[in-house]
Amino acid sequence: MRVGVLASVAHRTPPRGYGPWEQVASTIAEGLVARGHDVTLFATADSLTAARLSAVVPAGYEEDPTVEAKVAEYLHDANAFAHADGLDVISNQFDFMPLSYSRLVRTPVVTTVHGFSSPAIVPVYAAFDDVARYVSISDADRHPALTYEATVHHGIDTAAFAVGPGDGGYLLFLGRIHPDKGTHAAIEVARRAGMPLVVAGIVQDARYFAETVEPHLGRDGISYVGPVGPQERERLLGGAAALLHLIGFDEPFGLAVVESLACGTPVVAVERGSMPEILRHGTTGWLVAGVDEAVDAVAALDDLDRAACRQDAVDRFDHDRMVDGYERVLTRVVEEGVRR
Amino acid sequence: MRVGVLASVAHRTPPRGYGPWEQVASTIAEGLVARGHDVTLFATADSLTAARLSAVVPAGYEEDPTVEAKVAEYLHDANAFAHADGLDVISNQFDFMPLSYSRLVRTPVVTTVHGFSSPAIVPVYAAFDDVARYVSISDADRHPALTYEATVHHGIDTAAFAVGPGDGGYLLFLGRIHPDKGTHAAIEVARRAGMPLVVAGIVQDARYFAETVEPHLGRDGISYVGPVGPQERERLLGGAAALLHLIGFDEPFGLAVVESLACGTPVVAVERGSMPEILRHGTTGWLVAGVDEAVDAVAALDDLDRAACRQDAVDRFDHDRMVDGYERVLTRVVEEGVRR
Repeated sequence: MRVGVLASVAHRTPPRGYGPWEQVASTIAEGLVARGHDVTLFATADSLTAARLSAVVPAGYEEDPTVEAKVAEYLHDANAFAHADGLDVISNQFDFMPLSYSRLVRTPVVTTVHGFSSPAIVPVYAAFDDVARYVSISDADRHPALTYEATVHHGIDTAAFAVGPGDGGYLLFLGRIHPDKGTHAAIEVARRAGMPLVVAGIVQDARYFAETVEPHLGRDGISYVGPVGPQERERLLGGAAALLHLIGFDEPFGLAVVESLACGTPVVAVERGSMPEILRHGTTGWLVAGVDEAVDAVAALDDLDRAACRQDAVDRFDHDRMVDGYERVLTRVVEEGVRR
Repeated sequence: MRVGVLASVAHRTPPRGYGPWEQVASTIAEGLVARGHDVTLFATADSLTAARLSAVVPAGYEEDPTVEAKVAEYLHDANAFAHADGLDVISNQFDFMPLSYSRLVRTPVVTTVHGFSSPAIVPVYAAFDDVARYVSISDADRHPALTYEATVHHGIDTAAFAVGPGDGGYLLFLGRIHPDKGTHAAIEVARRAGMPLVVAGIVQDARYFAETVEPHLGRDGISYVGPVGPQERERLLGGAAALLHLIGFDEPFGLAVVESLACGTPVVAVERGSMPEILRHGTTGWLVAGVDEAVDAVAALDDLDRAACRQDAVDRFDHDRMVDGYERVLTRVVEEGVRR
């Protein structure tokens, strides 16, 4: 199968740091190459890939100030679609913009909807629903106005995460410091449960941090360690008794949750968004309604088996499973022919 | 000839106020309809036209805060190119973005280059030079890296401008208050020529206005009247002895110069950019090297004939001449076939 993978040009593919769209594009491209497909990766010229790289933008516009974002976007999309005739299918990981070219080519375009950055985006997806083949990143993230081909959960390289002992005697918050992520709820649960809490992640909402997190630091075992790189992340996850993921929004997918499971660490999560799809209640974590139930859940962590957490991550969220999912949907779209 | 005119969706077409790209699109669309062509205008849904209006964006993104610019641009371009098969040619008045679709359709796209908003834009135009048909708005504005089909000067509705008496005894500056436009030079010339100067236009550079213009107001007959609407514009132009257009940059085109001529008022302009193409030295104005020559030119205004100024504007810069120019280039491109 001749597959074009259209990455974002905000960052290099794979990303050096932040860059979820570029990470997904990289995982798909490398995974499909390993399975013998003929893959062209459309990405920045400094990208690293075993696929054929087709690039007209020298570097990510978030990384190189000489690259003008709008110019880069249009040149990048135009280049990818100029190659459409030589491809059986295009996997679009670059938001809604490439849809605007999709009626002008015979090659089917499978678009992963990574989320709706603003309500104004939904009408664009809806306008192309007749020709687009949408992939959701969780069943929970599906929009009722759109037709989907499949849900493919994000996958991680579980082999890169070692199972930790979970014997640090602390709970962990890992994510952006933002009301959506429930840092305040994690602090309250840890205090009521009588356990230390390690807070790790970037401060996205400075006022929220100052008002809700900072006053608790250094008391009741609450500490903030800032953003953490891969090694420290694995160490913190592996030592934690549980990850507290007490979200205040319908999260489309929770990468930290999956990473926690890969380290053998169970998760206490609010039952919203994609959480019921990711966590197995009573096996790999506890799904709770709010703070009260979360406190009870922490008291019941011994009922969960760390080996089962790890096994579930490997079985369901390894990046090979994600490549399986994309290979399946891309193959089906190619076999079904040019258009629905 | 089935012509698609692709307008900007920043503003309504024709624009209510500012909106040069939309004004050009409107003039072309209405002019070609009047000549019996089958015209589709791609513009905002609130646009006014005798052509067939094809719109997917409700209102200009500069005019309606609920319209998201990026979403509007992509939907608008996608809509226009989805209609390409039913058109013989597309006249693109919406900058470089539509070029990115031009390789995916068989319909030729004639793109008017309204200027290069940043050096980063030139590589985009260059990347499509093999398929694009570029129209420059003056010979002076041509970029050496690009191939052009024609130059078509902007035109105005000269019938809407009455010839003025030119007896107000003042000189006029009309344009953005900005170093590029030479407001400071106009003040110096007027003072040295011993004539009053009326300064009209928006303040684009507040510091320049405060330091260079404001100290002179109320002295030596220098006055500032702010931005002016069509009626006041015509009255000011018609009463002036001359328009001072002492630009400090290579101006691609000077609409105020043409409007001045339409009112019978000669122009003293620095010989840069498009000025030698627009002004006839010794007939409709004086082309000067700088302030010294401009002072001499003001002393020689009596050598110029107001009727000749008006006649030249009607002969060369009426909007019918502009429609002639676009009709000619679009017809030639259609007759030459799909691609060069």
